[in-house]
Amino acid sequence: MIAELSTRDASFDAQLDALLAFESISDTRVAQVVSEIIDAVRVRGDAAVLAYTNQFDARAAASVGELEIPPAQWRAAFDSLPTDQREALELAAQRVRDYHQHQLQSSWQYQEPDGTVLGQQVTAMERVGIYVPGGKASYPSSVLMNAIPAKVAGVDEIVMVVPAPQGELNPMVLAAAHLAGVDRLFTVGGAQAVAALAYGTDCIPKVDKIVGPGNIYVATAKRAVFGRVAIDMIAGPSEILVVCDGKTSPDWVAMDLFSQAEHDEQAQAILISPDAAFLAAVKASMARLLPTLERAEIARQSLASRGALIQVETLAEAIALANRIAPEHLELSVDQPEQWLPHIRHAGAIFMGRYTAEALGDYCAGPNHVLPTSGTSRFSSPLGVYDFQKRSSIIHCSPAGASQLGRCASVLARGEALEAHARSAEYRINPND
Amino acid sequence: MIAELSTRDASFDAQLDALLAFESISDTRVAQVVSEIIDAVRVRGDAAVLAYTNQFDARAAASVGELEIPPAQWRAAFDSLPTDQREALELAAQRVRDYHQHQLQSSWQYQEPDGTVLGQQVTAMERVGIYVPGGKASYPSSVLMNAIPAKVAGVDEIVMVVPAPQGELNPMVLAAAHLAGVDRLFTVGGAQAVAALAYGTDCIPKVDKIVGPGNIYVATAKRAVFGRVAIDMIAGPSEILVVCDGKTSPDWVAMDLFSQAEHDEQAQAILISPDAAFLAAVKASMARLLPTLERAEIARQSLASRGALIQVETLAEAIALANRIAPEHLELSVDQPEQWLPHIRHAGAIFMGRYTAEALGDYCAGPNHVLPTSGTSRFSSPLGVYDFQKRSSIIHCSPAGASQLGRCASVLARGEALEAHARSAEYRINPND
Repeated sequence: MIAELSTRDASFDAQLDALLAFESISDTRVAQVVSEIIDAVRVRGDAAVLAYTNQFDARAAASVGELEIPPAQWRAAFDSLPTDQREALELAAQRVRDYHQHQLQSSWQYQEPDGTVLGQQVTAMERVGIYVPGGKASYPSSVLMNAIPAKVAGVDEIVMVVPAPQGELNPMVLAAAHLAGVDRLFTVGGAQAVAALAYGTDCIPKVDKIVGPGNIYVATAKRAVFGRVAIDMIAGPSEILVVCDGKTSPDWVAMDLFSQAEHDEQAQAILISPDAAFLAAVKASMARLLPTLERAEIARQSLASRGALIQVETLAEAIALANRIAPEHLELSVDQPEQWLPHIRHAGAIFMGRYTAEALGDYCAGPNHVLPTSGTSRFSSPLGVYDFQKRSSIIHCSPAGASQLGRCASVLARGEALEAHARSAEYRINPND
Repeated sequence: MIAELSTRDASFDAQLDALLAFESISDTRVAQVVSEIIDAVRVRGDAAVLAYTNQFDARAAASVGELEIPPAQWRAAFDSLPTDQREALELAAQRVRDYHQHQLQSSWQYQEPDGTVLGQQVTAMERVGIYVPGGKASYPSSVLMNAIPAKVAGVDEIVMVVPAPQGELNPMVLAAAHLAGVDRLFTVGGAQAVAALAYGTDCIPKVDKIVGPGNIYVATAKRAVFGRVAIDMIAGPSEILVVCDGKTSPDWVAMDLFSQAEHDEQAQAILISPDAAFLAAVKASMARLLPTLERAEIARQSLASRGALIQVETLAEAIALANRIAPEHLELSVDQPEQWLPHIRHAGAIFMGRYTAEALGDYCAGPNHVLPTSGTSRFSSPLGVYDFQKRSSIIHCSPAGASQLGRCASVLARGEALEAHARSAEYRINPND
């Protein structure tokens, strides 16, 4: 049902490497199809977007304009929600907004003794595109998590694209667009949506950055337009790593593991504990609870192929292992979790204590649920306001500063055989300095 | 010699678009070669790195170990430099270090009334790779600009790769590696160096991020390994945009334009002014000074194919145009440049006032010279300490907080048909709350 490993085994390192191995698919045929779609959208614009959308999503639109949904309909979808859903969405949006306010970066400057001023000016991007998957993975929480940081950053215009197969669209997704501050919404998806956002068409405006998850066609298209526009990281399957001292309810931990395993068959759920009896108790809880889940079959496959219960010697060893795994979600289900925090080097999000279920972070705790997967927390961060701001260096030399720096730049530029650089600096040298 | 445009011309928009058009080359044959090199390095490791290096760089090394240069040699290279070069490098390194200290980001937390703690923990990447081009474009300043921000961020180990065709290496590059805090240095280049850093070999350690400029093989390899490791932006040709009110010496402005035009034939140098007589004076200065440059032929070609003198009506129009161009380097060669600063939305670096030659920023002013090109300052920032730090979200729910958030998460999770998410949250609800 789920692999049981121990760091005492001589083969543990190899077993762990095999468990963690996940290569994001790079399919030559998909790359070829995506390349053709991008070229078509670049050359034919809206006509290509319309044709692909009618074909792939079984639509019968006469123009891309018809594929845009006006804000009044988002508002109507929001107003039509059951009260509990409306209030939950509102609370989540407010908490996400409050948390992300803390990430706003400001311009800064400082002056040197000779009057030279140095600094950075922070500005927001002008226009951002948000990709929202359609069908069964069309999550309103994703709309909040992608759009709100951009809004907090001060982005002028947020353009959302979401495929609507057969014209069907989740009303909670529309409601979330209303709450999150989206500006325009097109029911277009796939590589054609990414291409339209990257190059612009008559109807769909060109954006500066494209964020949001998607299938392999969307991911391949994002990689292809990277550089032309900015993109977020290519997301892999969801992961949870629970480190437990053995004192949390086994049922709680089992359900936390299920909460990622139910995402899809490639999701990864791992529990690490120094307590062998606790590992056995969680295993028993999982066996008892799994059949009661609506998505039992997905969770079962995920746990069988990529899950693990890992016994370690000490909690310190568990933390070292967590850093090696660099998980998307890390639960520290232990006493005094704050004592371990300084030792966590790599994790997308850290859920501290027995009460902080990972699922709270998916919806409404405040932090973003777009997190680095597949070990990329070694070099990536949660999606945040900083992803929608950028910086310009500021250099304002006083005459005295330019004279002193000019002498230095002249030597280095001539050392690099860039004479015009040197002469440009030398013009500003005051021979009396 | 150089195009002369005016915003009054009906065709100005089209002329400007044509001038700015630059498509980074994506060559199918290069992509194929790079893909083969990466696969070979993944499978055969050092043996492949060695074979490619001996072949492409005309080396005769017996092992990759032989291609590593120990720090004592960097130190010796530094000590052997002429005094003026040594002092200039030291001053530049110190100023770059001082400036980048201001970019360090810190962890933060806040507590909510019910005791729930939210925040972000900021950590440094463990190991970073820096690519330094060989041959004529092997610039010591690039070593400083790429390595120092990583060092300031707290990166544990910086691995530098630089091709040494025929075994030759610029001693100033070694000296810069010594000053900048590089940890290991391999004379390996091309796609094989990128592949080795991305996947690791027995001799060359795997890194978390690869930064630094390179030729089309290096750029293509970086794009191919993106996701497996982090990379910086793919750099395009250098650009300078000078906005001048007409009161700066025409010779100074001419030489500032040359300082980018001399980089390569695809570099872009543009001057914008509302003063027609000044534009004519700069043109005359350029005609007089160009033949005196060592790199006159490169600058001439760059100016002829991609340069421009643009007449506008007002300085405000010049600033609007600067935002449209979103240049790598923007010189505000005007009175009171600070009044225009809040209106600059897109620029890699802003050089304020008549004394701030762009070249000062290339070497020693302090800010980074790795800047977004080809309009990418719309969504990218100068290379900085923030490129080598990353964040983990922190969520520590109090029992009361988990209970309240659990009710919200339960509603939203059930709305998304993710039952295990909901039940995991519901376990933490206190029915008496």
